Amino acid sequence: MRAWLELPAGDPGRVHHEGRVVRAAVETAREQVAALLGVRPRQVVFTSGATEAANAAAWGATRDRPGAVVLCAPVEHSAVRHGSERLAPVEDLAVDAAGRIDPSSVSEALARHRAAPPALVQCQYANHEVGTLQPVDEVVALCRAAGVAVHVDAAAACGQVHLDLGALGADLVSVSAHKLGGPPGVGALVVGRGVRVAPLLVGGAQERARRAGMENVPGIVGFGAAAEALAADGGARLAAEQRSARARTAALVAAATAADGVSLLGDPDPGGRLPHVACVSLEGVEAEPVLLGLDRAGVAAHSGSSCSSEVLEPSPVLAAMGADPDRSLRLSVGWSTVDEDVEAFSRAFPRVLEGLRSLRG
Amino acid sequence: MRAWLELPAGDPGRVHHEGRVVRAAVETAREQVAALLGVRPRQVVFTSGATEAANAAAWGATRDRPGAVVLCAPVEHSAVRHGSERLAPVEDLAVDAAGRIDPSSVSEALARHRAAPPALVQCQYANHEVGTLQPVDEVVALCRAAGVAVHVDAAAACGQVHLDLGALGADLVSVSAHKLGGPPGVGALVVGRGVRVAPLLVGGAQERARRAGMENVPGIVGFGAAAEALAADGGARLAAEQRSARARTAALVAAATAADGVSLLGDPDPGGRLPHVACVSLEGVEAEPVLLGLDRAGVAAHSGSSCSSEVLEPSPVLAAMGADPDRSLRLSVGWSTVDEDVEAFSRAFPRVLEGLRSLRG
Repeated sequence: MRAWLELPAGDPGRVHHEGRVVRAAVETAREQVAALLGVRPRQVVFTSGATEAANAAAWGATRDRPGAVVLCAPVEHSAVRHGSERLAPVEDLAVDAAGRIDPSSVSEALARHRAAPPALVQCQYANHEVGTLQPVDEVVALCRAAGVAVHVDAAAACGQVHLDLGALGADLVSVSAHKLGGPPGVGALVVGRGVRVAPLLVGGAQERARRAGMENVPGIVGFGAAAEALAADGGARLAAEQRSARARTAALVAAATAADGVSLLGDPDPGGRLPHVACVSLEGVEAEPVLLGLDRAGVAAHSGSSCSSEVLEPSPVLAAMGADPDRSLRLSVGWSTVDEDVEAFSRAFPRVLEGLRSLRG
Repeated sequence: MRAWLELPAGDPGRVHHEGRVVRAAVETAREQVAALLGVRPRQVVFTSGATEAANAAAWGATRDRPGAVVLCAPVEHSAVRHGSERLAPVEDLAVDAAGRIDPSSVSEALARHRAAPPALVQCQYANHEVGTLQPVDEVVALCRAAGVAVHVDAAAACGQVHLDLGALGADLVSVSAHKLGGPPGVGALVVGRGVRVAPLLVGGAQERARRAGMENVPGIVGFGAAAEALAADGGARLAAEQRSARARTAALVAAATAADGVSLLGDPDPGGRLPHVACVSLEGVEAEPVLLGLDRAGVAAHSGSSCSSEVLEPSPVLAAMGADPDRSLRLSVGWSTVDEDVEAFSRAFPRVLEGLRSLRG
């Protein structure tokens, strides 16, 4: 993004030199993001993030289908869930105790609605709180066979596991830059080949008239740079990131679950989860004082809910899995995590937990 | 924005140290933007730009008023116009030959719709193509007296003229950072005190649950810094910028209209226009080759239409004023403009025009 600071302050929609220089930077970023995702550059519509992309997907799919239902599991991100609920009647898809969407509930719902097909099926690539990888290939195939549009929220998965969105063939996919080492405030809606959706933001003809508004050029340039870094060495960089993320997450989970009354939520098989995130339940203590105790020890963690708020709200994801949504801790590692961070958690967590429990005892 | 690069990569919605540091940076920017606009910080909802803000205003105002009309002059920005047209029946407000909205057409329409009041009145602060300042105080007062919500697109005006949005009292105001020296891809919807509108982007509870999605922290920090620079010295900086912008724009207009068949569009009185922009009509030549000729001479200008597109589309603003929308040139100066730029235009423009006309002659 430092490179952007050296660019002229040009509008990429203009024909003058400054505009063309900026436009070239945006198009390079589009190629970098497309290469990471396995799609063509023109399929990438830059947005202000995955939230906007998910809202745009629901808008575009439901706009011309008044009354048609949206199928959506309770484990979807709030942007997906709320973005659907306000526009269409939403019907739940079933999930198991790991938060995994049951493909048979998709096929059952598609069959039930054959006379009036759903406007959209929502299927996240992986869960954002517990990391569960979803049967996304299977769900997309069911939707394609039924001729029903499917949106995949890949914000949690993108940059953490290898994505080949070209092969996946979903109509719409949402991704976010900050989840993969890029800046906050930028993301993309990836549009399937031949798919046309009404834009959520209208006005100018930016992004081939698929998303109006002056482009967030510094954010887009940063998104591109992060995507290129991850795609480097024919995927070897991403594979290496995955290995170290998986090892560090395993160490965090081992340290956490070594304490009494702490157990892993979601898929117990690490191969069924994203490499960089895990969620544990906490018996007998609230999440918030644990977070504050960890923060004092220099460890930034989060509770199971990923609602963004000063108030930690109960997580509907954990509730759908049958876990206590108030008493969970979300642990994640990123590209900037080092082994010392894992050690700091492993030292601090038992002390924090013991301290809180002794206060109550 | 370089300062942002040194911040931790924290989510401002989190309780840990990194999150609080980033949150503080966002809140500082909110105070800086609020100070420039004359409103309270909590009235500022950061968005991805004025296009999103204008779309959100139309959405929020029409969401619970199905069938209610929106009053909107044809000189409004396409984000305002299209953002209204897709959600509600739109009725035109009248404009004069300078593109100025006629307040009597507002009062007439409000009276006509007394039984079923409009969902929203659109009134830009100043026109984005020809610079005409709108009678925005008068229109807002009419709307307030009628109890009808009013949205003011202040993207073109913000940072160019002194705004006291607290005194203006509009329900909703849209502004953009890149129009005032900040980065592209960030803006704000300024919400009147006591006004509640349904958010366009839903999901997380960011921006006091008024705009979901991870905050564009670098963009917001840059927006705040630009606002603070403009508000410096009790408004003296903005006043100085205005004086030099007005002088340079006058020099551009004088150089342009010295040529045969070139005349100023919009209000002939500079006091009735924004200080930094002017639009001229071109007799006998198309805008595009003029732009390309100017570009070869190192001058970045634009045609009258501000639709962002590879294709230069006819401007509905100019059409509403009775001007030829295909044959106009938009000239503007900014904080980075120097006198040499004005001189470069003054030298190049007559040569470019003459060259094109001789080709045709």
